[in-house]
Amino acid sequence: MISKKFICSIAASLLATRTHLRSMHKMKNEKIGIIGSGLIGRAWSMLFASVGYKVVLYDILPEQTSNALKEIEKELHALQAKGALRGTLSPAEQFSCISVTTDIGELVSNAIYLQECIPERLEWKRTLYTELADIVCSETIMASSTSTYMPSLFSEQMKQHRENVVVAHPLNPPYYIPLVEIVPAPWTKADVVTRTRELMLEIGQKPVTLTRQIEGFATNRIQYAILNEVWRLVADGVVSVADVDRVMTEGLGLRYALLGPLETAHLNADGVADYFQRFGAEVYAVSQTYGPTPKMEAGGNLSKIAAECEEMVPRAQLPARRAQRDLFLRELCALKKQLE
Amino acid sequence: MISKKFICSIAASLLATRTHLRSMHKMKNEKIGIIGSGLIGRAWSMLFASVGYKVVLYDILPEQTSNALKEIEKELHALQAKGALRGTLSPAEQFSCISVTTDIGELVSNAIYLQECIPERLEWKRTLYTELADIVCSETIMASSTSTYMPSLFSEQMKQHRENVVVAHPLNPPYYIPLVEIVPAPWTKADVVTRTRELMLEIGQKPVTLTRQIEGFATNRIQYAILNEVWRLVADGVVSVADVDRVMTEGLGLRYALLGPLETAHLNADGVADYFQRFGAEVYAVSQTYGPTPKMEAGGNLSKIAAECEEMVPRAQLPARRAQRDLFLRELCALKKQLE
Repeated sequence: MISKKFICSIAASLLATRTHLRSMHKMKNEKIGIIGSGLIGRAWSMLFASVGYKVVLYDILPEQTSNALKEIEKELHALQAKGALRGTLSPAEQFSCISVTTDIGELVSNAIYLQECIPERLEWKRTLYTELADIVCSETIMASSTSTYMPSLFSEQMKQHRENVVVAHPLNPPYYIPLVEIVPAPWTKADVVTRTRELMLEIGQKPVTLTRQIEGFATNRIQYAILNEVWRLVADGVVSVADVDRVMTEGLGLRYALLGPLETAHLNADGVADYFQRFGAEVYAVSQTYGPTPKMEAGGNLSKIAAECEEMVPRAQLPARRAQRDLFLRELCALKKQLE
Repeated sequence: MISKKFICSIAASLLATRTHLRSMHKMKNEKIGIIGSGLIGRAWSMLFASVGYKVVLYDILPEQTSNALKEIEKELHALQAKGALRGTLSPAEQFSCISVTTDIGELVSNAIYLQECIPERLEWKRTLYTELADIVCSETIMASSTSTYMPSLFSEQMKQHRENVVVAHPLNPPYYIPLVEIVPAPWTKADVVTRTRELMLEIGQKPVTLTRQIEGFATNRIQYAILNEVWRLVADGVVSVADVDRVMTEGLGLRYALLGPLETAHLNADGVADYFQRFGAEVYAVSQTYGPTPKMEAGGNLSKIAAECEEMVPRAQLPARRAQRDLFLRELCALKKQLE
């Protein structure tokens, strides 16, 4: 019987040869496996295909994968028509980089990198990673798109290869928002973090690396700190939903599209040290007046917030507003590129 | 002796007549007084002049006011050259709307609205508002640009007219960031809030109204919640300054330039009620893991943060980076207008 290790090494040699040939056509021979064909899985497929990776998209049912493929083809041509297609390959070339499978063994075979995008249910993730441990090559990176679970939670029980598991958390919508948080479990190899970061840069995303896992990673910790205070301000009747959102969209958020919170402080004084020496005590004093962490449950305040949100954007208009958001994000990223 | 009230009413009639004449030239006859000729005072002067208000800018020393006037003239022409001048009047017309004085009595005489922009020192503000109480007309709105002090703190002691005091807090730089927070003291008349809001809309700013005063108002409460968590993440060694800033500039901040925190949630699920029903418990759980409020004092972590900030933007390059920020904000606001 031929060992899995032997197959992996043969495959690696073959890949090396074919990579050379394909590179002339800006196509790569390295294979990327995407697990889950929902919105996020499709976006990742397009991102990897945009620079010519050989992408295989997996889901459980043939209807899911064939449907995803149709959606991707339509989307690639729509992006081209809008001048928003990423990379230098044509929509047809990018589409030709993507294939589908419902066979998980076929998916992982020779893949250099797997991007998992299954629903946010911990037991499903644990089952999947337990299964992956038995079938992946020892060099395959297993990256989860999860926004919720620290990587230790679904990789701890793996019999092998858990050092190749990492979180690569995108924001919604990933095709237009470049941020990807890279979060290692305690046992993740440093090299896995480095290679994932390089891969993200290669596909045009902007990775940030956490040195260790933490609940909510960096993005949601910051986002939830904002939501807590916004919730309290509205629940306490201090401002309306429309006005509290405007604090961002007409104020803080305009700066944050270019400058992070610390660079903002750096520029608003003679450097960040001067800023905190002047305002640090005030930040602390105001922070002492925050109310308790709100419980964002169904009922009183949620009904009030939902009613005001639906006044701003009725539920029926959510898809149109999302399309407007995507258009805005595209133009905003183009504007930022001009300034770079 | 002719009473102050009588002079005020005569002035009001005169204003009514002259307003009609000046309106043909898009100039207004209503007078706006600006107290303090620093960066913020000059920005307010230009904003009010951009729609033709008769602006009088006050400061203590003639050198301050004449210097401010020179700066404003230069800036108006520079804005015109960059295509960034606000309003429909020419730079010369806008400049002709602005005069200066070092006589506080002259400043307040017949002014419909005063915008105070003196340094953030409470005792100075208390002294100023105590003095204003004796000399303003009963209809004059007294608005403070303070970001720090609740309006009750400097208006409580006023012998009269404290019901006309309100905070109108701009963000930096006010010419490019439209947000203005309007914050009433407990005794501020509802009508003063309404008129201030209308005035802000008229000059092209985007007001948000707080129903009552609260430490840090809305903007700094949200901004400080962000800074606290950003500080902790960097101080705890979880991410670098550059990466934590990137969480905003390549992620959250891109969305926040168009969508507030609640509309973001509204769009990221089937409406905001669905969002919080699905993620509310997670927001709460993550929030339980925030560390204590950091003290942002000189020393250990501030030195580390300052060193990393200065690696991103050396102090000598702060002015150039501020200019880039302003250029970006201008283009961003133009982009948002296109989408409206």
